Amino acid sequence: MSRKVCIVVTARPSYSRIRSTMLALRELPGVELQVVLAASSLLDVYGNVAEFIMKDGFQVNARVYSVVDGQSRLTSAKTTGLGLIELATVFDNLKPDLVVTIADRFETMSTAVAAAYMHIPLAHIQGGEITGSIDEKVRHSITKLADTHYVSTDQARDYVIRMGEPSERVFKTGCPSIDIAADVLKSPELTVDVFEKYGGVGHILDIASGFVVLMQHPVTNESDTARKQMDASLEAVRRLGIPVLCFWPNLDAGSDGISRAIRIFREKGLDENFHFFKNIAGNDFLRLLLKSRCIVGNSSVAIRECSFLGVPAVNVGTRQQGREHGPNVLHADYYADEIHAAVSKQLAHGHYESCHLYGDGHAGPRIAKLLGEVPLETAKKLNY
Amino acid sequence: MSRKVCIVVTARPSYSRIRSTMLALRELPGVELQVVLAASSLLDVYGNVAEFIMKDGFQVNARVYSVVDGQSRLTSAKTTGLGLIELATVFDNLKPDLVVTIADRFETMSTAVAAAYMHIPLAHIQGGEITGSIDEKVRHSITKLADTHYVSTDQARDYVIRMGEPSERVFKTGCPSIDIAADVLKSPELTVDVFEKYGGVGHILDIASGFVVLMQHPVTNESDTARKQMDASLEAVRRLGIPVLCFWPNLDAGSDGISRAIRIFREKGLDENFHFFKNIAGNDFLRLLLKSRCIVGNSSVAIRECSFLGVPAVNVGTRQQGREHGPNVLHADYYADEIHAAVSKQLAHGHYESCHLYGDGHAGPRIAKLLGEVPLETAKKLNY
Amino acid sequence: MSRKVCIVVTARPSYSRIRSTMLALRELPGVELQVVLAASSLLDVYGNVAEFIMKDGFQVNARVYSVVDGQSRLTSAKTTGLGLIELATVFDNLKPDLVVTIADRFETMSTAVAAAYMHIPLAHIQGGEITGSIDEKVRHSITKLADTHYVSTDQARDYVIRMGEPSERVFKTGCPSIDIAADVLKSPELTVDVFEKYGGVGHILDIASGFVVLMQHPVTNESDTARKQMDASLEAVRRLGIPVLCFWPNLDAGSDGISRAIRIFREKGLDENFHFFKNIAGNDFLRLLLKSRCIVGNSSVAIRECSFLGVPAVNVGTRQQGREHGPNVLHADYYADEIHAAVSKQLAHGHYESCHLYGDGHAGPRIAKLLGEVPLETAKKLNY
Amino acid sequence: MSRKVCIVVTARPSYSRIRSTMLALRELPGVELQVVLAASSLLDVYGNVAEFIMKDGFQVNARVYSVVDGQSRLTSAKTTGLGLIELATVFDNLKPDLVVTIADRFETMSTAVAAAYMHIPLAHIQGGEITGSIDEKVRHSITKLADTHYVSTDQARDYVIRMGEPSERVFKTGCPSIDIAADVLKSPELTVDVFEKYGGVGHILDIASGFVVLMQHPVTNESDTARKQMDASLEAVRRLGIPVLCFWPNLDAGSDGISRAIRIFREKGLDENFHFFKNIAGNDFLRLLLKSRCIVGNSSVAIRECSFLGVPAVNVGTRQQGREHGPNVLHADYYADEIHAAVSKQLAHGHYESCHLYGDGHAGPRIAKLLGEVPLETAKKLNY
Repeated sequence: MSRKVCIVVTARPSYSRIRSTMLALRELPGVELQVVLAASSLLDVYGNVAEFIMKDGFQVNARVYSVVDGQSRLTSAKTTGLGLIELATVFDNLKPDLVVTIADRFETMSTAVAAAYMHIPLAHIQGGEITGSIDEKVRHSITKLADTHYVSTDQARDYVIRMGEPSERVFKTGCPSIDIAADVLKSPELTVDVFEKYGGVGHILDIASGFVVLMQHPVTNESDTARKQMDASLEAVRRLGIPVLCFWPNLDAGSDGISRAIRIFREKGLDENFHFFKNIAGNDFLRLLLKSRCIVGNSSVAIRECSFLGVPAVNVGTRQQGREHGPNVLHADYYADEIHAAVSKQLAHGHYESCHLYGDGHAGPRIAKLLGEVPLETAKKLNY
Repeated sequence: MSRKVCIVVTARPSYSRIRSTMLALRELPGVELQVVLAASSLLDVYGNVAEFIMKDGFQVNARVYSVVDGQSRLTSAKTTGLGLIELATVFDNLKPDLVVTIADRFETMSTAVAAAYMHIPLAHIQGGEITGSIDEKVRHSITKLADTHYVSTDQARDYVIRMGEPSERVFKTGCPSIDIAADVLKSPELTVDVFEKYGGVGHILDIASGFVVLMQHPVTNESDTARKQMDASLEAVRRLGIPVLCFWPNLDAGSDGISRAIRIFREKGLDENFHFFKNIAGNDFLRLLLKSRCIVGNSSVAIRECSFLGVPAVNVGTRQQGREHGPNVLHADYYADEIHAAVSKQLAHGHYESCHLYGDGHAGPRIAKLLGEVPLETAKKLNY
Repeated sequence: MSRKVCIVVTARPSYSRIRSTMLALRELPGVELQVVLAASSLLDVYGNVAEFIMKDGFQVNARVYSVVDGQSRLTSAKTTGLGLIELATVFDNLKPDLVVTIADRFETMSTAVAAAYMHIPLAHIQGGEITGSIDEKVRHSITKLADTHYVSTDQARDYVIRMGEPSERVFKTGCPSIDIAADVLKSPELTVDVFEKYGGVGHILDIASGFVVLMQHPVTNESDTARKQMDASLEAVRRLGIPVLCFWPNLDAGSDGISRAIRIFREKGLDENFHFFKNIAGNDFLRLLLKSRCIVGNSSVAIRECSFLGVPAVNVGTRQQGREHGPNVLHADYYADEIHAAVSKQLAHGHYESCHLYGDGHAGPRIAKLLGEVPLETAKKLNY
Repeated sequence: MSRKVCIVVTARPSYSRIRSTMLALRELPGVELQVVLAASSLLDVYGNVAEFIMKDGFQVNARVYSVVDGQSRLTSAKTTGLGLIELATVFDNLKPDLVVTIADRFETMSTAVAAAYMHIPLAHIQGGEITGSIDEKVRHSITKLADTHYVSTDQARDYVIRMGEPSERVFKTGCPSIDIAADVLKSPELTVDVFEKYGGVGHILDIASGFVVLMQHPVTNESDTARKQMDASLEAVRRLGIPVLCFWPNLDAGSDGISRAIRIFREKGLDENFHFFKNIAGNDFLRLLLKSRCIVGNSSVAIRECSFLGVPAVNVGTRQQGREHGPNVLHADYYADEIHAAVSKQLAHGHYESCHLYGDGHAGPRIAKLLGEVPLETAKKLNY
């Protein structure tokens, strides 16, 4: 009998990360892949993942609309509760042998609790890392619910074991998001006109002679100031006087603040050198990054994928605080001056050597193989 | 301004454990106590806590009926999801400065996730212990969501710190359930006729010359066999030929199995020496235990309170596996013979010396004082 | 392409009523039958329908555990809300062309609202009748959400049309519950020993020389007095001095009161002539009724099926108030004396002629045929 | 003891309609007003009602974030289910003697079911009218759950009674939304610069010499074509060559389609004479209408308030189909040419006489007085 491995995708960036694992799982004999889409992965405004996933030839086994509108801390909790109720029913129907959850978005707690309570072995990808915000609590809390762990770095593995997980169930596989980066390095040419293909709003820019990318998510711990934080970043990159490709934020407490900052920036007519995108398919996005002179903001892409790609990055604020990073990253606080100075330094430096801190580009197949083999156990005690 | 401390009670035994803390909090200047009742604490069939809590003079700020019927793993998850949705709304209304969650029942995850996601500091009582079943995952997962920890033993404190919690936020206070035990030791006389006061079903027994107590909960990991496990225990104590006071189980996956075992045992007319209770108020229950010759089953009461009271205990099966215990405990597997042998040994031995492993009887005031003082912070990183 | 007809069953008695329709639908070319089990149909304590349904060879397409525990008005509302959330997801997955809902239990509102809001044509069986309690509101409210109506009597058809439904969409089919009664009349012998087959609790009675059946549900409008109402009925039939087969109530606000009345009646040792059943399969139950000298309580079975079977009935209280009935029914208020007098009168009278008020025994095939043909429209306006 | 009257507001336009009733209720001796905000009334993007309501000096007793994101038929059902769960808890806490629900938006079913199931008398405002779309089913379904009815017109009263409601519980009060219109007629001057006060996007227009208003909501029955419908209306008013004030739609299945139509219209640069508003306070909005030369779209405002104000209206499509209207309304199908022709005709005609079909401007106090007096009964039967 096949081992039914169920992957729950709850957001656009989660799909990018898990894609190489899914492609490898599909080829693995003895494994039946189940795909569940939930939360913001189904919402148009955040980039409907369903289209990308079906273009890749995967079948979707269940869809769970679980986002409670309001984009606040309150609705984060309610979204997680609604997802938990419905994912329990989904698991009861699909009867997976193994459930896979990715990283640390707030709503992934639904997947983890449902699987753990229903005694379905839970595999957690990207545990053991350190960041700021509520993600930190979510990530480690899920580690304590998970049965097997697929981590990106040596330090992450060490930390998961120190939290009491048995070492034989903690695998350093590298981060699967690096796999896409590695593919992109092999065929780095951006063959599409992103303005034409992805629409968005704002001016059509000449990006041939260089540009920067701005991608900033709300920091949940500071949602009220999310707009001011974005103001600073917009102002900093505006001063550079070169084209800026700016991306809409994830669904999170505070994303409304970011969106408002962008709207007002545009209303004021400050967006002469700016174009705003909602979503760009993983590969195109990385090729775009590879062509860019610097990525600014607080996306983990700047730290993970860009360390591998060698793209200079300016990490703004606390969201990625404490996360391991390669030589390509400079930090700046939420001040336009400080951000501007850091970006200027990166523009002067230019691209970096590829760094393998977060993986070598083969994480997906490695994780898939393990998912096909790991013992299907749910009993666990603190390993002290 | 007062510090609003919100205690969420989700079950009968949780109220017993938190009661001394609540009594002390009520007297603490600068603290406003908020009480929320949720899950099985509101259900008659499991012993409606609301009555006891109001007899103690506490006001209930909100009631959340969240138990999804079915008593399975599936409905455990759904109950937790529904509780999460509604507790989020409750916290939004009550605006507590600090939320307190107790121990490790599955539905306490609702409290923990709601508080953590809404950036309300979370205090967790009785973390760091080791047991069997899903409780183990719940307990440690909540540790990673909580901001301050109030543990029972030195080992528990050590384990919470090893999981990455900052040592200055982990307090060894002793277990608050020992507080009631200490009160009971001061006035040990059982002044009520339990058959008259608490009703129940079965024969009215002459317990003056000694009896045993049977209290067995389903083990979630083995819900399907819950009935057989109970069969073994019932048979073992029946053979003793002395009076048995037997208690109905908690609401959990498998409690139906236990109830069925009891029903069939009665239908078969094997219950000559048995009386069955739904619930007995904390103090009366401990006085009853103090008079008993042995407690049999898998309740944590046998390990915590009875170590302090010196009541001989036979712990059956895996539910309390790995938990620290005093000299009063013998273990037995789910076989009538094995259980019977262990109980016989305990009857021969008689009562033990009081052991302070789980506390000295002053945990409640200690915890209350800390809850009134601890910094109200929610930012946290792995302390490695 | 097949027309997908989705039947949502939410309780034990609903399945009995819809069974002949389902059997006929299964044979109908061009129709694909979908079966969804929700609410109390899945709960053991109320007689798990899943077993009967699968014994009949039907496949269950989805299971929705939606009962919020508490058996109060509050939890009735919450159960309906939870059912609505999950049935919406179920319909989104199953993509039925037509949804069928049965009668007027509170939680059937989940089915009706989900279908109506999702623009799936809704077929409603047993509308247009008049009874007491909240069922009255539920029934007519669903009529206004439904697109086609399958009613039992001429008066019911008239009433549905007077409420503004277009007459061409209101079909008098007879009540499908009469179909089982008609089958039973053809082979009326009870070939099983009900005590052996269905267990239950209480004394094994000699029923060969006559007995009465007691079946009383809580009246939602008077849930607080449900216990007293049951006390009166128990006392009334006890006085007869002949065997009584008594049935546990449905899941409703107040069922706890009924159960308590039964428990206390038994504790008091008044149950010498009583046996208590949880559930008996439809056919066996009707054969039992046919052998009985009278049915007492407030079940609609006494009015519908028993009018066809000619079984004398004493209808107690307001639950069936205003419902059309045949000559076999006498009414009594909630007083032991009054009930006792009415039952005595019926015992003296003996069985009645079969009455076809609620149908001729061919409703199921008639409804099935219509479900396969009716236009799949959801637009509707008051037809005034 | 005061009679606690609880008003549940679920959307921006519902507050406008109920405001005069609330103002009158506040002054009524023996009445305690409770206000609950739920669903889209709390969402910024649809015009957060909380601000307006608090500016009017009302206290909000509970907030229920219940909108499940997705804006589809599926999420309409889920939103209603989530609202039902939480409103039940709210009613359990607030213990209202009477619950008031307004009109026929899909999510008002949550209010109606929760109140009916909890045996709280339900007052329904604006029943008995006829329109297109799902609102039609919702409206009449709520009529069958409600205990008292406050309708706008003689025909509406007649229809509610014909549906089986007892005539002594059906009150013709006029529509409360006319009350605001009457106030506005008394002080018709628009004293604010709407562009300055309400922001919005698009060009700042010179509206002194005349303009039209475009307000179009998605028609739920035709959600997929919502965008095309809006395209036609946008094109029709664009051709007029005069200023257009256009409003964002309500939260409904299909509102995304309308928004997309607006976005693309703007991207194409067709919006030279357009300004787009999210929300304008009730009074300012009516004063603006009064100054306008015509209102185009499918808002009920065009039919109710504008009949009283005498503002020419072009009603597009099926949403208001069958609703009674005064002489100020012309109809057009979803074709730019047809809409353009009708608007041109209205521009030529100019303003109309005030028509009192929907009320005389004193509905609010009338309804309030009745709410303070009506018997608090929940038992009801078809009055045939």
